[in-house]
Amino acid sequence: MKISIIGAGLIGGSMALKLREKGIADFIYGIDNNQQHINEALDLKIIDAEADLEQGVKNADLIILAIPVDAARKLLPGVLDLVLDHQTVMDAGSTKAGIVKAVTDHPKRSRFVAFHPMWGTENNGPKSAIADSFSGKAGVICNKEESAADALSTVEKIVEALDMHMIYMDAEDHDIHTAYISHISHITSYALANTVLEKEREEETIFQLASSGFSSTVRLAKSHPEMWVPIFKQNKENVLDVLNEHITQLRKFKSALEKENYEYLEELITNANRIRGILR
Amino acid sequence: MKISIIGAGLIGGSMALKLREKGIADFIYGIDNNQQHINEALDLKIIDAEADLEQGVKNADLIILAIPVDAARKLLPGVLDLVLDHQTVMDAGSTKAGIVKAVTDHPKRSRFVAFHPMWGTENNGPKSAIADSFSGKAGVICNKEESAADALSTVEKIVEALDMHMIYMDAEDHDIHTAYISHISHITSYALANTVLEKEREEETIFQLASSGFSSTVRLAKSHPEMWVPIFKQNKENVLDVLNEHITQLRKFKSALEKENYEYLEELITNANRIRGILR
Repeated sequence: MKISIIGAGLIGGSMALKLREKGIADFIYGIDNNQQHINEALDLKIIDAEADLEQGVKNADLIILAIPVDAARKLLPGVLDLVLDHQTVMDAGSTKAGIVKAVTDHPKRSRFVAFHPMWGTENNGPKSAIADSFSGKAGVICNKEESAADALSTVEKIVEALDMHMIYMDAEDHDIHTAYISHISHITSYALANTVLEKEREEETIFQLASSGFSSTVRLAKSHPEMWVPIFKQNKENVLDVLNEHITQLRKFKSALEKENYEYLEELITNANRIRGILR
Repeated sequence: MKISIIGAGLIGGSMALKLREKGIADFIYGIDNNQQHINEALDLKIIDAEADLEQGVKNADLIILAIPVDAARKLLPGVLDLVLDHQTVMDAGSTKAGIVKAVTDHPKRSRFVAFHPMWGTENNGPKSAIADSFSGKAGVICNKEESAADALSTVEKIVEALDMHMIYMDAEDHDIHTAYISHISHITSYALANTVLEKEREEETIFQLASSGFSSTVRLAKSHPEMWVPIFKQNKENVLDVLNEHITQLRKFKSALEKENYEYLEELITNANRIRGILR
């Protein structure tokens, strides 16, 4: 299968590596505005050749959009304009309602499969790509009934090749769930980094004292705004809903401490411990 | 050197494993109210023998308190009552001002060295102990001028054997810094777990969708209240101070989203990204 990756970065690059390793991809085109990323992706043999958008779309059996969600939403209709009925287009974005809405009435809607691999790191660019990154994680396909059977089947093959466990979901539901499970984690982590940077003026002390716990909660705060501002923008209502709840939950800790109500504090912690049963 | 570990759990057990491996400990007594932990520590060869408190203290060159910070604070004066001038006592607690204050006027104060290894996991008990856990992390010694030169030197040898980088700090300063760098991370993580558990009633969905990002920010929420309630209690003022700042920071994200001020959102995220330069 010939594959074109639009956005030869962390996600697109990781998919390319794995799909080549699994023998799914015979030839991979890379399409990226960032020439440095193209050069790095060529050097790392993530892609076989550079292409412009039109070439890349026309020559591929499968086109994967792995760019920020606002760019993907804008680009997708034009990509679908170019594809024929034997071709499949998929995305890999963290929000799904917006992109699905953008092509609802497109005559080639059925060639598109909305996809979200539940994996990422705080890094970007092809140098950060890891072939085995997706293994065991959820691969979510949204609104599958809007895709043609053969296009869906192509993407299902890709999800299997990535060793992900497949989940089908409504796009709106997806955006509610990811607000809870992924997007809020990033806001918490950003806010935590800003808290520490605000309060702890001695950067050397942060560096010296940083424990494994701190590093793990603050890791996501390294994630880039180019990727995350569009996600928060597209999922604004759901993210605000969860953010309000999160502030309410933090206020409970504040109140327990202020009132020295340590039984209540213990109750809050014991409730949080239930996550142990859910996340192994 | 004969060492007695009071609290044969995650921290005490990990120290015991490493100190034996390094040839520092010839014989290790374990003292623990939890008989199951004693049995496990014996099975895992973390300790050589069980002891009661008096025996354990009298027979050891070095006594390590590795129990929750409230218990350590209560127990330390009695332990110091029992020690002679060739013996050293150290703790491993996450708050330092309280324990130091508890023995300021004790005639044997100089035999005690206040210590905090900046490492831990969400697990507890001797089965979770890992010999190499402390490597490269900060080992903080507080108020060293209140300890006798030989006691300090013994603990410095221990910190080196644990492969930690040594930091000296005032106990009050320590508690301010750890509020920023360790304690707030736990509150954030607990509150995040409670948020998700409150909003996402379908536990199966949490489990299925959980991404690497979510798992890493919520990992600390598995930490036990027996250890963390006493830490928050002893460091109440500092933790409240940081918690208030954290809520303020989260409100900035809320406001940026509500007002659809995405330039401000980008600014907040870009500021948080500075943590990348500080934490490698």
